[in-house]
Amino acid sequence: MTKQLIIIADNLQITNQTIERAIVNYDPEPIATMVKKCEAAGAQAIDINPGPIPLNTKEKMAFLVNTIQSATDLPIVIDTANPAAIYAGLKENRKKAIINGFSLESVKLKKILPLAKRFNVEIIGYLLHPDGHVPANAHDRLQIAVEIFKACENEGIDKNNLIIDPILPPLNWENGPFQALEVLSVIKILPELLGFPVKTVVGLSNLTAGKGEKAKKLLLERTYLPMLCASDLSMVLVNIFHHETIKVAKAYNTIISKDIFAWEEI
Amino acid sequence: MTKQLIIIADNLQITNQTIERAIVNYDPEPIATMVKKCEAAGAQAIDINPGPIPLNTKEKMAFLVNTIQSATDLPIVIDTANPAAIYAGLKENRKKAIINGFSLESVKLKKILPLAKRFNVEIIGYLLHPDGHVPANAHDRLQIAVEIFKACENEGIDKNNLIIDPILPPLNWENGPFQALEVLSVIKILPELLGFPVKTVVGLSNLTAGKGEKAKKLLLERTYLPMLCASDLSMVLVNIFHHETIKVAKAYNTIISKDIFAWEEI
Repeated sequence: MTKQLIIIADNLQITNQTIERAIVNYDPEPIATMVKKCEAAGAQAIDINPGPIPLNTKEKMAFLVNTIQSATDLPIVIDTANPAAIYAGLKENRKKAIINGFSLESVKLKKILPLAKRFNVEIIGYLLHPDGHVPANAHDRLQIAVEIFKACENEGIDKNNLIIDPILPPLNWENGPFQALEVLSVIKILPELLGFPVKTVVGLSNLTAGKGEKAKKLLLERTYLPMLCASDLSMVLVNIFHHETIKVAKAYNTIISKDIFAWEEI
Repeated sequence: MTKQLIIIADNLQITNQTIERAIVNYDPEPIATMVKKCEAAGAQAIDINPGPIPLNTKEKMAFLVNTIQSATDLPIVIDTANPAAIYAGLKENRKKAIINGFSLESVKLKKILPLAKRFNVEIIGYLLHPDGHVPANAHDRLQIAVEIFKACENEGIDKNNLIIDPILPPLNWENGPFQALEVLSVIKILPELLGFPVKTVVGLSNLTAGKGEKAKKLLLERTYLPMLCASDLSMVLVNIFHHETIKVAKAYNTIISKDIFAWEEI
């Protein structure tokens, strides 16, 4: 625990109907408003997940990136599996951007990974098997991490532009609690395994995906978050309007701030 | 993180005026009521801190231990630096008891540590310098832990009866944030250093002792608690009526429970 946790808002998703309508209608206002709200709530980066974008891919991504850039200087996390959309977004981007992301799946290695090199931006690598399956344990994740790292090296990507997502499965999977602890081990071990302070990111809502009471889900998420932090997680993807969770993230940054007055300011 | 966190209520303190009056008047009812409330709120052990007890030491401790035993079967943590009081308490005790505790201070080694052997109970060892000063870092704490362990061995105490308190200073000390992270390291390293799964305990309220808004203190405490848990802390001493903190402690136990249905019950 030597670094401040970076909070990425995951609120700009196609599953949000306001955002979906705004994209379809090329209406910047709801998107700009959301972005400003995210920043005010403490977001340090904005993840945009526009869905598959089958129609007018380039125009829609260009619109999204430009709309967000006009509303904030925060980094943009381009969260889509569509290489053309990523390309269109990066072409418009004039600030810090992160590609979210690639895996060992062959089409992603060929079409998405090279974009990180071409645009010299950070890219998130998922610790998934090439067929998209979630690894069963920490050991398998670490083997995949080595492959991911090698793929970046082969592509000529600066290792400091790699961010690893260990892939957190839901607690309500059969081996969910076990997996939640394995993910913590992976985050702890990765820097030693790869020989440099590799950055890591986790999508916190994955922990409680599926059925369940919202209050319980949020309690589990804000309990697990400091455990991730204690493993030295770099970034968390989170609903920035989950107020209690964000308070915990900020309190963590206060605890490790080494500034004795910081905790008077939270 | 392989074991469930044990929650010890620190509510039976002489600083609580109701408790103080009950002790002075040998009035069991307020104490029994408090103990039952603690148990209902999730306490798995009851810490009693009766203060220095200058008068009628033996009678007061006998009264306290008997009153608590009549109200609950939970273990009693005898939290005093007065060897005569500890002796009197252990003599009355017919359930599980823990001595809280001893340090390398010579009078404690001579008068308190032998009681753990004599009564075959667990004892908390504080990672303090012999003069009572708080160690400056993890390294000093680990050196002291080795001395504490040796002292137990010399006394013929079963190592499984040793519980180590790394001593958590307040965040608002000059090096408080640094110390909070050093304490986590110590908890992580101790089992490997001593060669067995040594148990650990932390007094959570120490983190925010001193001035400060209560809401901020509680936020910091419930953020730091899962970090302690991620270091595999065994027991936490906590105000059992700090509802949000206790929820987090229980959520942690749910996450590591390996029972996929457990999280539906929190």
